Amino acid sequence: MDGSSRTPNGGLRALTAAAAIAAMGVAGSAAAQQWQPLPEKAPAPEDNPTTEDKVELGKKLYFDPRLSETGTVSCNTCHNVMEGGDDGRPSSMGVHGRIGPRNAPTVWNAAFQSTQFWDGRADSLEEQAKGPLLAHPEMGMSSHDQVMDRVREVPGYVAEFKDVFGGDNPVNIENAVDAIGAFERTLITPNSPYDQYAKGDKDALTEKQKKGMQAFQQAGCTSCHSGPAFNGPQMNMEQGQGFFQKFPTFTDNEYVEKYDLMADKGRAEATGNDAHKHMYKVPTLRNIELTAPYFHNGAVKTLPEAVRVMAKTQLNKELSEQQVENIVAFLNSLTGEFPEITMPRLPSKPGETIVKGAAPVKKGDH
Amino acid sequence: MDGSSRTPNGGLRALTAAAAIAAMGVAGSAAAQQWQPLPEKAPAPEDNPTTEDKVELGKKLYFDPRLSETGTVSCNTCHNVMEGGDDGRPSSMGVHGRIGPRNAPTVWNAAFQSTQFWDGRADSLEEQAKGPLLAHPEMGMSSHDQVMDRVREVPGYVAEFKDVFGGDNPVNIENAVDAIGAFERTLITPNSPYDQYAKGDKDALTEKQKKGMQAFQQAGCTSCHSGPAFNGPQMNMEQGQGFFQKFPTFTDNEYVEKYDLMADKGRAEATGNDAHKHMYKVPTLRNIELTAPYFHNGAVKTLPEAVRVMAKTQLNKELSEQQVENIVAFLNSLTGEFPEITMPRLPSKPGETIVKGAAPVKKGDH
Repeated sequence: MDGSSRTPNGGLRALTAAAAIAAMGVAGSAAAQQWQPLPEKAPAPEDNPTTEDKVELGKKLYFDPRLSETGTVSCNTCHNVMEGGDDGRPSSMGVHGRIGPRNAPTVWNAAFQSTQFWDGRADSLEEQAKGPLLAHPEMGMSSHDQVMDRVREVPGYVAEFKDVFGGDNPVNIENAVDAIGAFERTLITPNSPYDQYAKGDKDALTEKQKKGMQAFQQAGCTSCHSGPAFNGPQMNMEQGQGFFQKFPTFTDNEYVEKYDLMADKGRAEATGNDAHKHMYKVPTLRNIELTAPYFHNGAVKTLPEAVRVMAKTQLNKELSEQQVENIVAFLNSLTGEFPEITMPRLPSKPGETIVKGAAPVKKGDH
Repeated sequence: MDGSSRTPNGGLRALTAAAAIAAMGVAGSAAAQQWQPLPEKAPAPEDNPTTEDKVELGKKLYFDPRLSETGTVSCNTCHNVMEGGDDGRPSSMGVHGRIGPRNAPTVWNAAFQSTQFWDGRADSLEEQAKGPLLAHPEMGMSSHDQVMDRVREVPGYVAEFKDVFGGDNPVNIENAVDAIGAFERTLITPNSPYDQYAKGDKDALTEKQKKGMQAFQQAGCTSCHSGPAFNGPQMNMEQGQGFFQKFPTFTDNEYVEKYDLMADKGRAEATGNDAHKHMYKVPTLRNIELTAPYFHNGAVKTLPEAVRVMAKTQLNKELSEQQVENIVAFLNSLTGEFPEITMPRLPSKPGETIVKGAAPVKKGDH
């Protein structure tokens, strides 16, 4: 990939570059090189090295619903690591039953995304983690200060921030999201059947999956869904260069209206730049069988239909049902091994709750 | 305890018996006998023996939010085992942000409660587990059939029910709650400082805690909060004999109005029997420092205040601030050791979500 494809500024340039990759993809030895296994570890940014203590603190914060206004919504609520790293809903439900606009992307292997959120408005896991805390339909807090004020009430948290980060005022939002990012960076699912195949075990995939792999490549899916996480080339995250594509690229088909694909302006909603209309981060396909429903608005309920929609809207192709079935079989081979996670013990303020503003209910209220 | 105290029919008889225990409590050798450590295991009912596989299945169901209407609320949402087994709210928030009428009791050591729910309307953990699934402000499902229909869509669940229970139609609600009950029965927190003391390590409590222990007994708290779980005598659960008390017993004090203690009719709300007005299950005091706010309506925010309210409304006593402080110190010694729990992997329906009825959101909706 050269620099020209890294620009989020226009679908055309990106598509051109993508077409070039696709052309490479079908050529012999280049094709062999193309199938890359998922690394077992995600690289950490220089300013947030992964340490065991930091990961443990981040895990607590990630699972702590008391960081939401109502005390009911944690990072894990919408990005459930016990499931596919998402919530199985078209779009998420946060505090007070409020519903957000977009489908929750999986947290599994999010460390390998070159940009975060569907519209790429965060460059890093750390930056991303700041958003949901304050989002009205997610955790609904009024400010990061309010979040950290709660954390500061818990002696166990204060001690842990001090141990992990040191300094005069360690209980601050930057340290909190560094810890959460460090935890998320451990959420990797290597060793899927596909990975075993890519590493040389040719029996790791079924014949159907191999056919699906070929169909996936020949149809041109690898134009965008390339690389070890099937989310495009690894960009320079620290420079905020995400890999974006326009969706839908081809609009003259039934799916556009059926699934309301033009309502959301994509990256343009974040940047206000018309050139970013309907541009989205290319999401990973890892564990995709576990993350239905699909797309930014969760409007497509099943994986076979998602494959049909993609082929038509992105490649202007109609796949046969056999091709769809084979590609789905291949996609199912991208489900990896999930590491065992022990539940954190969330430290408490003794004899008092830190969830504020949740008034006792009078009997007549319900 | 003789049978006379087992009756849930009147506060007076129960109090009389309770006064007798209190009198025993302060007498030398009886006092020594009274302080019992928490067993490390909870006895399982004959018709639901605990097995490793059943516990694992129950754990999955316990943590599965897809068993709620919106796919957002699991048993663990309100009874969070990563915290004190509750949710830190005055009363819980379920699907669509609906708020329930009562404070969520802790799931930790619930196996040692002689009856379940504040009003004792379930005799067992298994029976209790059926309630929240269908409660409008909790998981909000329309029927147990609807719950099990979702479970039945997941091949991994179907296989597991078959392995654990066998039979022709193993995916049914009775088996589901048996599994959940078996998991909950493992949630025991032994070996608190108090337990170590009760087993003979006289240095396990601080001087202040020992003073608090004495004050707790002399004030008469042990009348009701006796036994290894500090929730009264172990009743015959299978016969549905819970240990109930009237709250408030003494109503001529400021707390009754301040904390709205008469609004909820307690057990009478469940039975329709006037004799059960304001009767509640005596809850365990284990880990009580972690389960604020307090009482059936969660109206009391701190543990010291809860101690004051109890002394006045149940024993008609005003404690000195020193006594309150000492008793709180003693209560803090009831925080036990929490077993490490690994997160379950929730099985999925490949390429499809089992959360139904959550329609994709149109951009204009929010």
